[in-house]
Amino acid sequence: MDKIVSLCKRRGFLFQSSEIYGGVQGFWDYGPLGVELKRNLKDAWWQDMISSHNELLVPANAPTEFEMVGLDCTIIMHPQVWKCSGHYDLFHDHMVDCKESKKRYRFDQIRGRWCSRGEQRIFVTTMAEAEQEEDEVRRRGMKYFKLRAKNADELTIEKESLTFDQIQERELVLAPDAKSLDTLTEPREFNLMFKTTLGALGGEADVTFLRPETAQGIFVNFKNVVDTSRVKIPFGIGQVGKSFRNEITPRNFTFRSREFEQMEIEFFCHPDQSKQWYQYWRDRRLKWYTELGLSDEALIMREHHVEELAHYSVGTADIEYAFPFLPEGEYGELEGIAHRGDFDLRSHMEGKLDPNSPEGEPMQVELNEHGKPKYKGSGKDLSYRDPITNERFIPHVIEPSAGADRAALAFLCEAYTEDKVPDDKGELQERTVMKLHPRLAPVKAAIFPLVKKDGMPEIAKDIYSELKKHMNVFYDDKGAVGKRYRRQDEAGTPYCITVDTDTLNDKTVTIRDRDSLEQVRIKIDDLVSELGDRLS
Amino acid sequence: MDKIVSLCKRRGFLFQSSEIYGGVQGFWDYGPLGVELKRNLKDAWWQDMISSHNELLVPANAPTEFEMVGLDCTIIMHPQVWKCSGHYDLFHDHMVDCKESKKRYRFDQIRGRWCSRGEQRIFVTTMAEAEQEEDEVRRRGMKYFKLRAKNADELTIEKESLTFDQIQERELVLAPDAKSLDTLTEPREFNLMFKTTLGALGGEADVTFLRPETAQGIFVNFKNVVDTSRVKIPFGIGQVGKSFRNEITPRNFTFRSREFEQMEIEFFCHPDQSKQWYQYWRDRRLKWYTELGLSDEALIMREHHVEELAHYSVGTADIEYAFPFLPEGEYGELEGIAHRGDFDLRSHMEGKLDPNSPEGEPMQVELNEHGKPKYKGSGKDLSYRDPITNERFIPHVIEPSAGADRAALAFLCEAYTEDKVPDDKGELQERTVMKLHPRLAPVKAAIFPLVKKDGMPEIAKDIYSELKKHMNVFYDDKGAVGKRYRRQDEAGTPYCITVDTDTLNDKTVTIRDRDSLEQVRIKIDDLVSELGDRLS
Repeated sequence: MDKIVSLCKRRGFLFQSSEIYGGVQGFWDYGPLGVELKRNLKDAWWQDMISSHNELLVPANAPTEFEMVGLDCTIIMHPQVWKCSGHYDLFHDHMVDCKESKKRYRFDQIRGRWCSRGEQRIFVTTMAEAEQEEDEVRRRGMKYFKLRAKNADELTIEKESLTFDQIQERELVLAPDAKSLDTLTEPREFNLMFKTTLGALGGEADVTFLRPETAQGIFVNFKNVVDTSRVKIPFGIGQVGKSFRNEITPRNFTFRSREFEQMEIEFFCHPDQSKQWYQYWRDRRLKWYTELGLSDEALIMREHHVEELAHYSVGTADIEYAFPFLPEGEYGELEGIAHRGDFDLRSHMEGKLDPNSPEGEPMQVELNEHGKPKYKGSGKDLSYRDPITNERFIPHVIEPSAGADRAALAFLCEAYTEDKVPDDKGELQERTVMKLHPRLAPVKAAIFPLVKKDGMPEIAKDIYSELKKHMNVFYDDKGAVGKRYRRQDEAGTPYCITVDTDTLNDKTVTIRDRDSLEQVRIKIDDLVSELGDRLS
Repeated sequence: MDKIVSLCKRRGFLFQSSEIYGGVQGFWDYGPLGVELKRNLKDAWWQDMISSHNELLVPANAPTEFEMVGLDCTIIMHPQVWKCSGHYDLFHDHMVDCKESKKRYRFDQIRGRWCSRGEQRIFVTTMAEAEQEEDEVRRRGMKYFKLRAKNADELTIEKESLTFDQIQERELVLAPDAKSLDTLTEPREFNLMFKTTLGALGGEADVTFLRPETAQGIFVNFKNVVDTSRVKIPFGIGQVGKSFRNEITPRNFTFRSREFEQMEIEFFCHPDQSKQWYQYWRDRRLKWYTELGLSDEALIMREHHVEELAHYSVGTADIEYAFPFLPEGEYGELEGIAHRGDFDLRSHMEGKLDPNSPEGEPMQVELNEHGKPKYKGSGKDLSYRDPITNERFIPHVIEPSAGADRAALAFLCEAYTEDKVPDDKGELQERTVMKLHPRLAPVKAAIFPLVKKDGMPEIAKDIYSELKKHMNVFYDDKGAVGKRYRRQDEAGTPYCITVDTDTLNDKTVTIRDRDSLEQVRIKIDDLVSELGDRLS
């Protein structure tokens, strides 16, 4: 993983945000190569899911034909959206404060072990990763006992690693940065939405939030889309855009960021068909990743257990990838495909629904002065009338929700390859190559004159100028050709085109394949169509 | 303007954000047609400015050849960015509060007239638009005097409209929503950045802001880009993304929004060449709008006067458009092209510079406990060494900064046309047509079977499926063909393709041009290339 991070920085894929000011945790900028990769990725999603979708054909494995349209909503919405969606009350982490160090920790991330010396037994907590936990507990345990002038050499540490919530004897707990025992408060809720204030008055009524997901923008526009674009159920609305979550511990490069981009679909269907659509989207989304180059072996589809599901849901599945920063056998989420029933549309009609109520009643979170639920919905009718059967119903929703930054990271990790290739003298040399799918590659082809004389640069520049009209290409005449190949390999450029002595006679160039290293000669005049074919 | 707003809503170009909850002022969502229009617009900018830029050719009127690369930074950055950029101290409006109504107003938007009755003279202020101001002053003046039991019929109102800051006798001022005199406070500064807090602690050190412009993300990454992508000066970095300004009075549809999208370039050049580059970008950016369909008559280039410029700047120009919501002869800003000297890079090196200091000294805004300026820069060397001359200098910057939403709105306004076209019987009928440039049009072509029989729908569906692989097209078989044309005219679709009786015999279709209404027959097999030619 360190090698991937280093390449990303060195070649301009990713930079830490505000790096010259020491950076901000959980925020990442895309550099010149990274922005093209991410644009290609988002465009591939938009094209495959929305703009190239053919609503007159029934796609493979789909129950029926269907329509897809796009939407682009604002990041800041009416605060009532988040009250009715449930995020205001339920989208939080549990935090504990340390009365001594004044630090705050995520409750579920504090763990530790029992230590003892003679008769004194304490529970030493730490925020260290699992593998360093025992060392850290030993170090802090010894420090604690020495501080109290006791010989710590006889320290014994129990093998079993426990979470903070498994410990009853809170008076024996040593907090992660404390010197005394029993300094941690009870866990408290901390909402993960970034708060901000609208307008100049700055009163409580003007407090709102940066969206923690793009999905709600689609739900609140459901009626607008139905009324203005003649779509008929089943249909999907797709959106690409930034979301924000005030993560307590952002980590693993761009994997857990506070600002991130989502590619979400809300697919609206008849309740009777929702199970079939859930299956369809689950399978189709998995296929999308493999078609763009993620390997079957590194991907899993993790179905949530029936007990984990909300009452309204027939299923939820996560598409997960074996990111190299995770321990062997562990996977990180790329996309969730959830059957959400009519939960969201009903919440925005009637007020936030109680996920624990078997009948899905509106949640009586807080009553206003008239004894009515404070978070009442919009009161707008978000049901749908089938134009043929005249049946009126609240559509069920299948939500394939993908993270664009996580997908970009997975494609970068998958692409990173070290192999050995023969140099000019036929000797094997190590190389680093980013085997990105041609659709995702930031630069599609590089054009080199073999040497900077005999008119080769002029021909190469002409080729560059012609190709540039059709795709993102790069011209390079600096250094040995072998070195120029390596630079393009690292950038993930699938094809390198070289103008050499033969070009001067027969108007052909070599085209080298990044992965197979195969080189073939083709006519300059055929380059556009040849590259077009290879890239598509 | 009302007609344009109504069409945008009715056809799914634009919706008010969170409309089902009553909306949020200054926030707008793009519907199915709008999102495609805006995507096309942003893609056209990216392609024309960044990805299709040929760095080996000297573009027309450019001083030399140059490079262009892209970037995508986060919306939330380190708070120090905004302290050094000057936004923390200087990016504000002046507001006044009314002690009676508890309302807050933008100082520069309060204006009014002197009214008198007998010997009593008062200054009646209002927030009404200029043309309604006199009526409003009369209404409120009469109300005021009646409230004090005086006959208001003898009211006289002075012709001259004055701004609040022109009035010395504050005790005679009637605030816009008050019943008593002298209720307005002195103006106070109100920062226009949206504030939020990072992490769980929520202390002052964690307060940061949503970016009010994308530009600063480029400046703080200048060194990263130079170090990782081998660009040489002169070169430009482009970025497209959301920005946020907590406008006191958002208005004029999407023109003044609180959340909006920018398309910004920071172009870095040698100080000696900066004047030439300023001219170049000024002219090139104006041409971009006319090439995409804005008319010369509706556009002006407004050069700022020498006295308006900061000491470091050789020029600033605004590209402005005659939006239909503005009074005759007035224009609204689409894009600003500013010569910014080395102001921004130096600010991020050394701390915020004082725009009023002739030597461009760092601004001593606030001293810390050691007597040093609090807003010291990053301390990083952001100068550039020319690889040929070895000269080291801080580059000068030309900043063409465009608003994507304003551009989209201008293109929508320009496109909106009412004309008369002959119907099936040759009688002239009114039609509304959006004459959008084919590159910007959400749907490139619509395919109709003339009637739903004789195999026409099947042929039309085949054509649709074939075209859909290449571009965004639409299939419609509902209603009379004339009505289907009208629907596409309103959506801005440049071409309509109809399958009719002749198609069954000779495999040709008619292709109708939205603007000229000309219809020609062409072979189905030639459709892809014919449309490709017409669209490019």
